[in-house]
Amino acid sequence: MLLSGGLDSATALAVAVRRGLECYTLSVHYGQHAWRELISAASVSRALGAVRHQEISIDLRSIGGSVLLEPRPVPGPDDASRRFGIPETYVPARNTVLLSLGLGLAEVLGAYSVFIGANSVDYSGYPDCRPEYISAFNRLAKLAVAEGSSGGRAIRVEAPLMRLTKGEIIRLGLSLGVDYGMTMSCYQPTDTGLSCGRCESCLLRLKGFEEAGATDPIGYVGRPASS
Amino acid sequence: MLLSGGLDSATALAVAVRRGLECYTLSVHYGQHAWRELISAASVSRALGAVRHQEISIDLRSIGGSVLLEPRPVPGPDDASRRFGIPETYVPARNTVLLSLGLGLAEVLGAYSVFIGANSVDYSGYPDCRPEYISAFNRLAKLAVAEGSSGGRAIRVEAPLMRLTKGEIIRLGLSLGVDYGMTMSCYQPTDTGLSCGRCESCLLRLKGFEEAGATDPIGYVGRPASS
Repeated sequence: MLLSGGLDSATALAVAVRRGLECYTLSVHYGQHAWRELISAASVSRALGAVRHQEISIDLRSIGGSVLLEPRPVPGPDDASRRFGIPETYVPARNTVLLSLGLGLAEVLGAYSVFIGANSVDYSGYPDCRPEYISAFNRLAKLAVAEGSSGGRAIRVEAPLMRLTKGEIIRLGLSLGVDYGMTMSCYQPTDTGLSCGRCESCLLRLKGFEEAGATDPIGYVGRPASS
Repeated sequence: MLLSGGLDSATALAVAVRRGLECYTLSVHYGQHAWRELISAASVSRALGAVRHQEISIDLRSIGGSVLLEPRPVPGPDDASRRFGIPETYVPARNTVLLSLGLGLAEVLGAYSVFIGANSVDYSGYPDCRPEYISAFNRLAKLAVAEGSSGGRAIRVEAPLMRLTKGEIIRLGLSLGVDYGMTMSCYQPTDTGLSCGRCESCLLRLKGFEEAGATDPIGYVGRPASS
């Protein structure tokens, strides 16, 4: 289970746990400026009862290409700097790297599923969050590892939130007992861990809580945490 | 261009350079016990005239699953410990991780090709070295990154050595001026950099030089370097 510390992957983990799966969580420290999300990921993993949590580091800053890898303000959602309709927060090939690592870990663990919180309804338009991308990864995964490529059982990526709105994701998570106070979605939290409330990730999150008729328990700049 | 320091990727780089491409080389320090190959990679990149060489680190030892990640002797090619016909030297999802990193770097550089030295004739049977695997990666790559997924030009993996025997690869490389004395293929070189001559990688290499009617210039245990 790929766990970012955000609300989507926390909800996807809760779905997997509810299905009775033994979950091993993996977070990747890829050089994101918002490294605080990694602390959230470890807490979420523990709270939801994963068997084990692990972190792996790969410094994608040496590849670059995303504002998320740099210590500068993240543009708002209406920023005109999009390329091919995709915002500057896109990290080149990030989900392909993350899923590759998840695939390798699944093979070593003897697991047959890699869970990811990707969804393509209320999202930023990243190409590697869409259902056709996940399908293509699964065709690759079948050929990439030992058992699947030898005609045995394949490892498959599961993206249980793919078709849900942010409001539906939050309602689902609340029904499964996810404590969203442990999660963090902001691209540029303050030094004290408050979310900015202005980046695209914060705006999607806040819109989701509104749709779900719930209160976001985390703290935002100018609005303290409610939990 | 993914560069391992071995003879295949050196030859693939020479092919790309001969085509007149501006080549950027990437080596991955993934926790391989045979880290000496990284020094070879940097030398090969410089000698063949790449524009830039870079290294990225990701410690796949935390995922594990391969004898190449451990400080213990590598089994010979006839070892009975194969699983699904694949030897213990297989590193779970390695090429998927490497190609993902190559894909991300290509996107940032504005490149449209990722070269890899993979070949599937004289090889160890790794699933992620076969032509059908590369084809599946290309279908994924088209969907994974910004330009290709927006209907623009896709980034494609090129594996120019895929259908060549080891002897043909070496003949090709010699004709392109590759100095194989700079390359290293051994899974378990000695502390002084001699190749063992017994692991599957050494045996494939030596067989290739024999087929090519050439002398391998590197040093082996019990046989000094000829160059």
